[in-house]
Amino acid sequence: MDVISVIRTKRDRGRLSDEQIDWVIDAYTKGEVADEQMSALAMAILLNGMDRAEIARWTAAMIASGERMDFSSLPRPTADKHSTGGVGDKITLPLAPLVAACGAAVPQLSGRGLGHTGGTLDKLESIPGWRALLSNDEMMGVLRDVGAVICAAGDGLAPADKKLYALRDVTGTVEAIPLIASSIMSKKIAEGTGSLVLDVKVGSGAFMKNREDAAELARTMVGLGTDHGVRTVALLTDMSTPLGLTAGNALEVRESVEVLAGGGPADVVELTLALAREMLDAAGLKDADPAKALRDGSAMDHWRRMIAAQGGDPDAALPVARERHVVTASASGVLTALDAYAVGVAAWRLGAGRARKEDPVQAGAGIEMHAKPGDSVTAGQPLLTLHTDTPERFEYALAALEGGVTISPSGTAYEPQPIVLERIA
Amino acid sequence: MDVISVIRTKRDRGRLSDEQIDWVIDAYTKGEVADEQMSALAMAILLNGMDRAEIARWTAAMIASGERMDFSSLPRPTADKHSTGGVGDKITLPLAPLVAACGAAVPQLSGRGLGHTGGTLDKLESIPGWRALLSNDEMMGVLRDVGAVICAAGDGLAPADKKLYALRDVTGTVEAIPLIASSIMSKKIAEGTGSLVLDVKVGSGAFMKNREDAAELARTMVGLGTDHGVRTVALLTDMSTPLGLTAGNALEVRESVEVLAGGGPADVVELTLALAREMLDAAGLKDADPAKALRDGSAMDHWRRMIAAQGGDPDAALPVARERHVVTASASGVLTALDAYAVGVAAWRLGAGRARKEDPVQAGAGIEMHAKPGDSVTAGQPLLTLHTDTPERFEYALAALEGGVTISPSGTAYEPQPIVLERIA
Repeated sequence: MDVISVIRTKRDRGRLSDEQIDWVIDAYTKGEVADEQMSALAMAILLNGMDRAEIARWTAAMIASGERMDFSSLPRPTADKHSTGGVGDKITLPLAPLVAACGAAVPQLSGRGLGHTGGTLDKLESIPGWRALLSNDEMMGVLRDVGAVICAAGDGLAPADKKLYALRDVTGTVEAIPLIASSIMSKKIAEGTGSLVLDVKVGSGAFMKNREDAAELARTMVGLGTDHGVRTVALLTDMSTPLGLTAGNALEVRESVEVLAGGGPADVVELTLALAREMLDAAGLKDADPAKALRDGSAMDHWRRMIAAQGGDPDAALPVARERHVVTASASGVLTALDAYAVGVAAWRLGAGRARKEDPVQAGAGIEMHAKPGDSVTAGQPLLTLHTDTPERFEYALAALEGGVTISPSGTAYEPQPIVLERIA
Repeated sequence: MDVISVIRTKRDRGRLSDEQIDWVIDAYTKGEVADEQMSALAMAILLNGMDRAEIARWTAAMIASGERMDFSSLPRPTADKHSTGGVGDKITLPLAPLVAACGAAVPQLSGRGLGHTGGTLDKLESIPGWRALLSNDEMMGVLRDVGAVICAAGDGLAPADKKLYALRDVTGTVEAIPLIASSIMSKKIAEGTGSLVLDVKVGSGAFMKNREDAAELARTMVGLGTDHGVRTVALLTDMSTPLGLTAGNALEVRESVEVLAGGGPADVVELTLALAREMLDAAGLKDADPAKALRDGSAMDHWRRMIAAQGGDPDAALPVARERHVVTASASGVLTALDAYAVGVAAWRLGAGRARKEDPVQAGAGIEMHAKPGDSVTAGQPLLTLHTDTPERFEYALAALEGGVTISPSGTAYEPQPIVLERIA
């Protein structure tokens, strides 16, 4: 077996054999296949594709590169959620304690943000004292005591994926459906959840800009999960405009707490409940009532216990950025577009996101939205408040927003986009 | 300018701009673009292609990465030849002194062999004392005194190409016509020759297995040369069977000396003369008579002076391998095929070639052929003699030859393939 013949097979539009896949993943993990060889293979996969059996084997090989967790000793069924990433997507924060309040165990391994999409761990780290890094034993302890845990994936889980993901990030090979699907699913399957709900975002603020690609990714991941015995379902959800009224770390925590308190923006509540119902269904808890758990305070109670169990103070004041800048409506009329990508890039430039994975993020930076598509606005009213500790960045953030806000004449018909576009099981 | 946007442009089937090409070649040469990024770009180029203007700019950027030589002070016109590599292709050895004997200056920068094709420098290094490595001043001195020099390209010439070539070799991205053409032509143009004849091989023993690909490569290179003011012509020549009766280092030197002495195999003589006439024509020496220079000893005289000028002893005995193995004809009839690739791989396995560029080669190893396609053979007669210092390799060499020799019943019609298939100017 040699790496050049593996690369050539895919380059020349052939199928990779099981032996080739097992060998190349193992050799790459061990450092016997070099980064420059794997990146050539990744580009060939991006351009020439892999069939379902190849993707399944690739995923299995990445799972086999590391340890697998086992939650079978827990007294509750496990349910996990993964989002492909969007702008203002804080759903994991209210969702995990909500589903735990309804009787499932939620072992939520999360990541940090890169580029214009935020990361769940970055958001939670704006809570004073909260720790993302838990040992496997600590994670199991929180899961057992609270029913939900949100933490960083340990190094032992799918190390091949960790290495390959970092490589794809710097070689223009991120946007390959087989590689995205196997990356996500190898971690989720190795994590050992019994059921999984995928929130596959589609629109300007998402990885997948068009619905066909998103549906293909969703089907691929559902197939992979099912083949590995994980009850998996995917929702295709809209990411043409940000979720909720905030994008940024502490700003999104604040909004999540509002949802857990029974309030919060309608779209965040709607998507949180839709995903909660799917997770509870997949976990076999069909009688659970997540809307009630939001109303009666049990979801909030689980949130407070979950944050405290990881060292966080749920009562502490959240960080606030040093400087603000208000963007006002340039005309009166109907806000017909607030582009997710524009808002995401602006929040990133304000300091909420990072360009490289070793960069720090600002806890208080981000964007508050005072209107959403469909709302009537009056010239001069505040549309957005930009927050940052580094006001020299306002200019760059404003440049990113250019063209991202559309105000149409009053009376223009606005057809609201449903949040959940499609369900794929 | 960032490398991921350059990679994405080509990945998504776009055109690279002049600025993108200049930047990425310069940044890669300086080490600011990493190997894993360049290999992803190389794979995208291999799969999505480059248009003529992109290839021209890519070539120009590689030339600009290093120094350029200048032969304008020489009293003779310069003419160079490049072969894309084949089995038994020793043509450079008799050709360079022959063309010098006819009045041109031949600044022949050559390479070493890799894989199943031999390298001119490896062959000449089997001559006791001969040195491939000359300073620019030494090279100019030999060229001025003798009219021909064959030596290694200095590090200063197209360093971007040197780095990229080594990368392509280990990442399955060698077989891209834009990259092959720009690699060859950047070195030849930087070398500063006034005219250039390309011997583009086609057939099992060549890089290009089919004639359409070979013709495309030839046209691309002729275009590049012409655009840079080098009078360039290409011959498409057959490489379905080895050239001459030897494949190996010292074995091929011996055969080259036979040609210079007025003898040698007909195909080697024919191709040497065809290429010499093209070089002399391109150099404006239309009245030169290379056939006469072979007959009258003037080519041999230039050979001896050229070898001596680089420290070699033209009278020294050539190295001989320690062990031999004779392959005999399995039946009587007509030899209708002697596959170039099979012979090339067998010679490589015997020790004539190398798998990695830091490997040594055996001077005496290789294969002597006692019959060529079209010859009648009798069962039991010697067909091939295998030479090596490492007889444990006979078995592997014989395995490579399996299926490479075809003997058809006596009376089977055999249509000889012309050596020069097409001329592209």
